[in-house]
Amino acid sequence: MIQTQSSGMAGVVAGHTAISTVGKKGFGLTYRGYAIEDLAEHASFEEVVWLLLNGELPSYEQLVAFREDLRSQRALPDALKTILEQLPATSHPMDVLRTGCSVLGCLEPESSFDEQHAIALRMLGTFPSMLCYWHHFHHGGHQIEVETDDLDLAGHFLHLLHDTSPSEHLARALDVSLILYAEHEFNASTFAARITASTMSDLYSAVTTGIGTLRGPLHGGANEASMELIETYVDPEAAEEGVLAKLNGKEKIMGFGHRVYKSADPRSEIIKRWSQSLCEETALTQLYAIAERIEGVMRREKGLFPNLDFYSATVFHCLGIPTSMFTPLFVFARTAGWCAHAFEQRAENRLIRPAAEYSGHGPRSFVPIEERP
Amino acid sequence: MIQTQSSGMAGVVAGHTAISTVGKKGFGLTYRGYAIEDLAEHASFEEVVWLLLNGELPSYEQLVAFREDLRSQRALPDALKTILEQLPATSHPMDVLRTGCSVLGCLEPESSFDEQHAIALRMLGTFPSMLCYWHHFHHGGHQIEVETDDLDLAGHFLHLLHDTSPSEHLARALDVSLILYAEHEFNASTFAARITASTMSDLYSAVTTGIGTLRGPLHGGANEASMELIETYVDPEAAEEGVLAKLNGKEKIMGFGHRVYKSADPRSEIIKRWSQSLCEETALTQLYAIAERIEGVMRREKGLFPNLDFYSATVFHCLGIPTSMFTPLFVFARTAGWCAHAFEQRAENRLIRPAAEYSGHGPRSFVPIEERP
Repeated sequence: MIQTQSSGMAGVVAGHTAISTVGKKGFGLTYRGYAIEDLAEHASFEEVVWLLLNGELPSYEQLVAFREDLRSQRALPDALKTILEQLPATSHPMDVLRTGCSVLGCLEPESSFDEQHAIALRMLGTFPSMLCYWHHFHHGGHQIEVETDDLDLAGHFLHLLHDTSPSEHLARALDVSLILYAEHEFNASTFAARITASTMSDLYSAVTTGIGTLRGPLHGGANEASMELIETYVDPEAAEEGVLAKLNGKEKIMGFGHRVYKSADPRSEIIKRWSQSLCEETALTQLYAIAERIEGVMRREKGLFPNLDFYSATVFHCLGIPTSMFTPLFVFARTAGWCAHAFEQRAENRLIRPAAEYSGHGPRSFVPIEERP
Repeated sequence: MIQTQSSGMAGVVAGHTAISTVGKKGFGLTYRGYAIEDLAEHASFEEVVWLLLNGELPSYEQLVAFREDLRSQRALPDALKTILEQLPATSHPMDVLRTGCSVLGCLEPESSFDEQHAIALRMLGTFPSMLCYWHHFHHGGHQIEVETDDLDLAGHFLHLLHDTSPSEHLARALDVSLILYAEHEFNASTFAARITASTMSDLYSAVTTGIGTLRGPLHGGANEASMELIETYVDPEAAEEGVLAKLNGKEKIMGFGHRVYKSADPRSEIIKRWSQSLCEETALTQLYAIAERIEGVMRREKGLFPNLDFYSATVFHCLGIPTSMFTPLFVFARTAGWCAHAFEQRAENRLIRPAAEYSGHGPRSFVPIEERP
C-alpha cells in the first residue's frame, strides 16, 4: 500500500500525461509544449483542438480541412431533437448537455476505438447545436435550424444563440475563452473521464462523466457563481462592502485561488484584458470596475488571485450569453481536453482502481431482524 | 508532490471510507463491518441497501417502511417514456440506463442535498422500470405497465422482464446476486462517481458517471464477456480445448483474477453455489459443467480464481435474462454503493484533484501557421 495521506489527492501523482503542464513551478501553463499566452495570442480554437488531439500544430491545409470537418458535424438527428423537446424548460443546461451527449451515444454508438477521432469531432460539432436547439425551443417556442455557415465554433454558437452573426472582435473574444478552457491536466472532470475511459468504456461515456463532473460549483460551476456575485453589486464601493461582509461571515467567494497554481493563474491575465476591452465596447465599464474591485479586495484580504472563471464570467456576460450557459461553454472547450485524455488513456491503458483506507466499523456478527432493537 | 509510481493507481490510497473493506488481507469483504457471507445468507437486498445508505441494519419496522417507499418509486414520468421510445432498439442497454438516469436528473432535479436519500430511492425504483420499458417497447412492440406488486427489486425486475412473477427460489437467487454486487469500495465506477460528487455536483451526475464507467469490459462488462465465453462451448472438453487455445494466443479471459483480491474473491464461492443449484433446477447442468471446467483450467494454467462476474453470468442466464442485461443488473445493485459513497464524499468533502507527472514535449516556440511545413 502506498499511503498518500492527502485529502482530495492534492499533490498526489495519479498518472502521467503528455498533453499539458499546469503550474509546474506554481505558475505557467503549456499545451503540448506551447505556452498558453502564445496560443491565446496567435492560434484559433480549432487549431488548439487539433494540437490537443494530435500532438502537433496543423499545417494550413490540415486546418482548413479540419474546420470543414467540424462544420459538417453540426446537424442533430431527429430523435435527439425530439428528446431535447421533452426536457423541461427549467432544466439545468448542464443536465441538458449531459443528457444530449448520452443520447448521441445511443443513436451513433462508438462501435470501435478506430472511430474515436470522428466521434470527438461529432461531439464538438453537436454540443452548441444541442444547447441552442433546446434553449430556443423552450424559451422562444421555435425549432431552430442548427447549421450555420460560420467557420468557427465561437462564431457559430453566438450566431445560433442570437440569430445573427457576431462581429469578428466579439467572436474572437469567445474563441480565446475556448482556448483557455480547452485543457487543464488532471482536473476533476478530466481525471474522472480518464477513469471511465480506463474500463475501456466508450468515448461518449467518458465525456458524459466529464460533463456531470464539471457541473459542480467547485469546478465548472464557478464561472456562473462568479457572475452571480459580480451582478449583486451596483458599484465598486458596494462590492467592497459586500465582499468584506461575506469574508467576515466565512463565506466562500468563487473564482479565486487554485488547487495547483500558487501565485497566479496564467489564464486570468489574458481573459482580464479581454474583459476590459469588451466591457468598454459594450458600455459595461461599471461591471468591469466592480470585478476589479472584488479582485483587489480578495488580494488584500485573503492573498488570493482570480482564476480563469472570474473574468471569463464578465466576458461571457458582455457577449450576451445567459449566465446558465457559462458552464456549458466550458464544456464546448473542455471536450477537446477530455477527448485528448481519453485517447491518451486508451493508448497505454491500465484500469484506474486505487485503494482506500478503511475507517469504518470493525467486524461484527449479523443480528437476525427479529432480534434487532 | 507525492510520487506514487504505480500504474492504474494499484495499491495507492486515494482516500478513506467507512462503507466496506475489500481484501484487507488479500481476501474477505465486509459491508459496514458485516461479512458478505452473512449478508448473502441472512439478509435481503433491500436490507443491505438500507445498511449501506444508513450505516446500520434496519429494524423490522424500518425495513417494512423502506420496502414500501422503494415500491412507490417505480413509475416513470411520461417524458421519460417518450424518450425511451426514441432510443434505438439496437442501443446498448447500459447506454439506455446512462441516458435514463441523466434524463431523470432533468425531470426531477436535486434542488438540495437534503433530497439525496429520496433521489437514491427514486433511482433504485426506476432503473428496472426504464430498462424493461425500453426493452419491451422495442423488442415486443408494447408499452408495459412498470408497476408491480412484487415487494422486492429482484422479483419486480423478473416480473417486468418475463411478465410473470418468478418462483421464490429464483427471485432469491437474483436477490443474492444483487447483494454481492451492491458495493465494492474504491472500484473504478465508484471512485469516478466520488470525483463527480466531490465537485458538489448532483447525485444524478454521480450515478451517471458510475453507469458510464461500469459499462467498460474491464469492469461491469466482464459478466457479459464471461457468458459469451461459456456459451461458446458445447461441452467441458471443448471448453478446455478452447480456453487453452485462447491462453496460448495470449487472449485475456474475462471473469478471473482481481486487482485487490490475491487468493480468492469471497463472492465467487457464494454465487457458485447458487449457480449449481439453479443450473440443476433449470436443467442447464451442462452449462455449469462447462463453467466449472473453465474455472479448473484457469486455476491450473494461470493460478487465477474466478471473480464474482464469472458464475454470476450463469445465474443470470438460468434466470432467462438476456446477456445484454447482465451489466444493467450490476447497475441496479451498485447504485446503492455509488449513492452511499456520494453521501460519504459530501459529508466531508474536498475536491478530488490529483496531480500528473508530465511526460510530454518541453517548452517550444509558437510557429505561425504560414511558416509551418
